[in-house]
Amino acid sequence: MTPGASTGGEFAVIDRLARRLPGPPAGEVWIGDDAAVLGPAGGQTLLTTDFSVVGVHADLALMGLDDLGWRAVAVAVSDIAAMGGSATHVLVAVAGPPSTDLDALYEGVAQSVAAHGCVVIGGDLSNATEVVVVVTVAGAVGDGPGPVLRSGARGGDHLFVSGPLGASAAGLRTLREAVAAGRPSPASGDSSTVEAYRRPRARLAEGEVARRCGATAMIDISDGLAADLGHLADASGVGFRVDRVPVSTGATVEEALGGGEDYELVFAAPEVDVVLRAFEAAGLRPPVVMGRCTTDRDQRQWLTPAVVPGGWEHRFR
Amino acid sequence: MTPGASTGGEFAVIDRLARRLPGPPAGEVWIGDDAAVLGPAGGQTLLTTDFSVVGVHADLALMGLDDLGWRAVAVAVSDIAAMGGSATHVLVAVAGPPSTDLDALYEGVAQSVAAHGCVVIGGDLSNATEVVVVVTVAGAVGDGPGPVLRSGARGGDHLFVSGPLGASAAGLRTLREAVAAGRPSPASGDSSTVEAYRRPRARLAEGEVARRCGATAMIDISDGLAADLGHLADASGVGFRVDRVPVSTGATVEEALGGGEDYELVFAAPEVDVVLRAFEAAGLRPPVVMGRCTTDRDQRQWLTPAVVPGGWEHRFR
Repeated sequence: MTPGASTGGEFAVIDRLARRLPGPPAGEVWIGDDAAVLGPAGGQTLLTTDFSVVGVHADLALMGLDDLGWRAVAVAVSDIAAMGGSATHVLVAVAGPPSTDLDALYEGVAQSVAAHGCVVIGGDLSNATEVVVVVTVAGAVGDGPGPVLRSGARGGDHLFVSGPLGASAAGLRTLREAVAAGRPSPASGDSSTVEAYRRPRARLAEGEVARRCGATAMIDISDGLAADLGHLADASGVGFRVDRVPVSTGATVEEALGGGEDYELVFAAPEVDVVLRAFEAAGLRPPVVMGRCTTDRDQRQWLTPAVVPGGWEHRFR
Repeated sequence: MTPGASTGGEFAVIDRLARRLPGPPAGEVWIGDDAAVLGPAGGQTLLTTDFSVVGVHADLALMGLDDLGWRAVAVAVSDIAAMGGSATHVLVAVAGPPSTDLDALYEGVAQSVAAHGCVVIGGDLSNATEVVVVVTVAGAVGDGPGPVLRSGARGGDHLFVSGPLGASAAGLRTLREAVAAGRPSPASGDSSTVEAYRRPRARLAEGEVARRCGATAMIDISDGLAADLGHLADASGVGFRVDRVPVSTGATVEEALGGGEDYELVFAAPEVDVVLRAFEAAGLRPPVVMGRCTTDRDQRQWLTPAVVPGGWEHRFR
């Protein structure tokens, strides 16, 4: 439970706090989307900050500090991907006990920023009783349409997801089962689901192509498809019907719908062909068409029997 | 003690971590100064991030959550002031137990951003066992000279401090004595030292004037004058002789030299008259000339008997 949530859910808390503060000028977006949008159209900057707290977001019995460092960067960069931007600069603030192996943590940070095409420009260190990593990412929006907000979907838009879901939750389950059975923790390289849990990748290329090919709304899947698609629909004032969800190999349908932490992107766009051609032209695997937005904002229809059973590979073989 | 410091002091740790990461292009500053400097000369952006951890940086028996919110913003903004910049945009990430009174904390945040001329554009919330606030500030450098680094002081430069020191440490002492004696905690309005401890102000106007009137190096006093002037001298490769330190009313000489958390600015500049005239023209109280930089980088000379005894008001009456 989020701090302050004893007096309302997380979104209610954020709404209440935001009302204490002045709002943005026209063309900017401050609190409430995946990242803040600053500056005039054509040269906008994105800024976002994200916690990774051991005991809340990560269990050091199931991952190394290097994985924690990787993941903290990827999770924050994913908010930039969800706007259709590129990540440029990263600040890494780390608090923990004096015994914390910062070299291991920064090894993962260094690998993750390199993989995501950005650089570390600063940070802070502090003592604390638990390990807390806060990553702030600055991003840029390239040529073409502006950043993709959560709020632009319209009734009739098709809903896409950038890849199969549930791998991270399945990896977490595998690791927990190993610990419970007293078996050694699987290495990341031994299992794609364990790798997906420990070392997620932000979908920067997919987000940028989605922005360029007409995406009207976009969000990354951190809390789970059901929750995050709900956020997008709420922000856009639309309903949805979903009749197809790609499930990762090794994951259950429940893990795909509710597991979260896959960091795939969900987006809405009016034209299926335009989207599929743009992803193909960019050399990216095609997104899965999950369903459509509807004009009835109260509609939340999940036709789960039609979930794609074997995951990505089966759908597009 | 900082995390990782079991294998070296904080600065050694930062140096070691920075070596894992690529360095900046010419004209930019990444890790190692008060804030990172990005972009081409003339339109540079500053970015900095700062922890405020309850139990490390703040004691909730001695201040309210509103004071913590104020302070977390002021401390981070002070790093922008120390570059001679203006603070523009702030991200506030707060972790804590579900019972944390976020409304109180954000009341202080809102007051502090308003006092420092910036706005909150985003943030994050997380559960955690202790209250942790991480404030990231973006800043801008106006017309005139570029941002003032720690590393530009030269032998012969005069050393200035923007105001009297020790008030924050004296306020902390007053609060601790009250708690130890079982007395009610003094209200901030009852004591300027308590106010200095709970609600420090970043010296943005002073930093900007120092940049415009030829400051060659600058740093804010967070760890204490002795420590922070040492950082400036180390970064610049100079020594110093200090023969005058302004002590706040109610503070001891020890509190002025070592107390820290005053968030006054220390800077070096070649011409005393130019600096004093610039501060006067800006309507700011004049900085105190503390001494000079020397070319002997090993020299660290404190002529403490010459400390200005009664604080600011006595010096300039």
